[in-house]
Amino acid sequence: MTSVKSAHVVGLGLIGASLALALRGAGWRVSGDDADPKTVELALARGVIDQSIPAGDVALIVIATPAGVVSEIAHEYLARLDDPRLIITDVAGVKGAIVRDVSAPRFVGGHPMAGSELRGLAGARADLFQGCTWVLTPTEATPPDVYGRLHGYLREIGANVVAVSSADHDRLVALASHVPHLLAGALMNQAADAAREDAVLLQLAAGGFRDMTRIAAGDPAIWPDILFENRDAINVALTSLEERLSDLRGALVTGDRPSLFESLQRAAQARRQLPGRALSSEDMAYLRVLIADRPGSLAQVTMTASEMLVNIYDIEIAHAIEGNRGTLLLAVDAREAERFMAALRRQDFGVVRET
Amino acid sequence: MTSVKSAHVVGLGLIGASLALALRGAGWRVSGDDADPKTVELALARGVIDQSIPAGDVALIVIATPAGVVSEIAHEYLARLDDPRLIITDVAGVKGAIVRDVSAPRFVGGHPMAGSELRGLAGARADLFQGCTWVLTPTEATPPDVYGRLHGYLREIGANVVAVSSADHDRLVALASHVPHLLAGALMNQAADAAREDAVLLQLAAGGFRDMTRIAAGDPAIWPDILFENRDAINVALTSLEERLSDLRGALVTGDRPSLFESLQRAAQARRQLPGRALSSEDMAYLRVLIADRPGSLAQVTMTASEMLVNIYDIEIAHAIEGNRGTLLLAVDAREAERFMAALRRQDFGVVRET
Repeated sequence: MTSVKSAHVVGLGLIGASLALALRGAGWRVSGDDADPKTVELALARGVIDQSIPAGDVALIVIATPAGVVSEIAHEYLARLDDPRLIITDVAGVKGAIVRDVSAPRFVGGHPMAGSELRGLAGARADLFQGCTWVLTPTEATPPDVYGRLHGYLREIGANVVAVSSADHDRLVALASHVPHLLAGALMNQAADAAREDAVLLQLAAGGFRDMTRIAAGDPAIWPDILFENRDAINVALTSLEERLSDLRGALVTGDRPSLFESLQRAAQARRQLPGRALSSEDMAYLRVLIADRPGSLAQVTMTASEMLVNIYDIEIAHAIEGNRGTLLLAVDAREAERFMAALRRQDFGVVRET
Repeated sequence: MTSVKSAHVVGLGLIGASLALALRGAGWRVSGDDADPKTVELALARGVIDQSIPAGDVALIVIATPAGVVSEIAHEYLARLDDPRLIITDVAGVKGAIVRDVSAPRFVGGHPMAGSELRGLAGARADLFQGCTWVLTPTEATPPDVYGRLHGYLREIGANVVAVSSADHDRLVALASHVPHLLAGALMNQAADAAREDAVLLQLAAGGFRDMTRIAAGDPAIWPDILFENRDAINVALTSLEERLSDLRGALVTGDRPSLFESLQRAAQARRQLPGRALSSEDMAYLRVLIADRPGSLAQVTMTASEMLVNIYDIEIAHAIEGNRGTLLLAVDAREAERFMAALRRQDFGVVRET
């Protein structure tokens, strides 16, 4: 790949504009558009994008608009641009409906787990995705080579890509993001209501309370859409959390010290083991995996990695795939390589480690 | 006060040892003791304390032991040392039972809202209390001059002292600390249980989840005592939080967007208005308040300040109090001075602002 690659970003808010900056930083030519012509002007003036009209051979279109219009825009570009090498992705925080609506092989849903206190173009940063987890939601219809190329593009801007199904994504972000947001809001409102009687409460709110309510300060306007879009998964997760709280309260009121202690201890252990940021790119192991050239085989490899918490740092299809076999080149953390290889072998993949 | 003041610290864990270092830094002579003789040796070797036996005229004894033995130790020192100038305080996180047990005028309950990831003597820092909120729980039996001197001592080490009743303290820390701790644990356990099926969940746990579960990593051994000690207040606060969560879930499931949005918006506003750290000591207003020389009159002034979120940066009894009137010198944030003075005048205090 010696020629300059081109991308087009639709929606130049915090994520879209940061992605444009990151891709330009990685040597791409980037065009961009936004519903607000003033934002496009500003993005041009600040060098966030090279131009507003997509260049000839666009390899990647990223739809970084509000979630409600993603499907429509994706269908529009799929109809307008028939280049089979073009990949379209999005960045919406809930994936089920979009991935159902846009089932084209060239579309892969995405969700970068990145954000900022700042909003919009003004908050854009070229390094926003360095070390961030970027979820892709390939389906059985996603060709390995489409997924592999998209994964590679996102690695160029420093993201750690993981693959999960859209249903799993939505269930897991309910637990990891949406329920925590509702909790933070409820806790903050409870304290604010109590502070109306006892203003001193807010002075007793030490670091722990501040930590737990920080996300409640986020823009309230963007949340109802996200929460309603994912309401089924949130309903399940929140119901289960209410049961956990009720159980804890029961242990407290009945004086069940062993059960309370055990619960606190498990939480402390789990929190201390929460994985940190990405590893440095040293100490990689490079693996060659033989895969069948059919939709689903690549997803099987990447989902195995995700389920084992093995991060794939780089991915490449080694040969132009002809016949019914291909070779996947993967870079993973060397410390994880052996158990990952064993898991792949149990699924009858041929796998060798490069030396 | 030209002579060196002496303090004795019982219990040389994180809080006790930090307090010893802070007082020594402020020019005090500090003795200290601990149930573990090795800890005393280490504290002497590291210069955390000057000596292990209390010096002749001890002005302040701080009981920084586990909560369960505070009352017993306080009674022991009250019986042993009858100097009327001696003040005894503690640092336990739940105040109701201790303040009921130790009703002596020379004992004032306390609770510094400070902590660290580190534990024990090894984590001690001289600046741990700089800018931290330090709650004191004076009662109707607390003489103004005892409260005033203790307040002054804590100001010497940089703490922002607020006065509330022990019952209010316990109700408010349930909301600001104990319920958040249980929530963080429940959220972490829920995610850890889900991650056993889908390990990738932990990679989707972005900054918000990390923030919300950070306190769950704290030492689980210290929490059951605190939680059981304050179980009544926690039961009320947690029940009310469960109702809030259930209401939010109801709004989500029934599609009640206005109510969900309103709740998120109120939380965002409240979180953004959460007071920051202490102001710099510039821009103070100095007030003289005439008070009756009887128990309760000082508490009335300090609790008025606390309820209005006016922080008292310095406090002094201006004259040796004779007859039935004294003068209180207060330093408060200049921006708060006028409304604080108005509130005091409504309660028939004479108050003038120094120029």
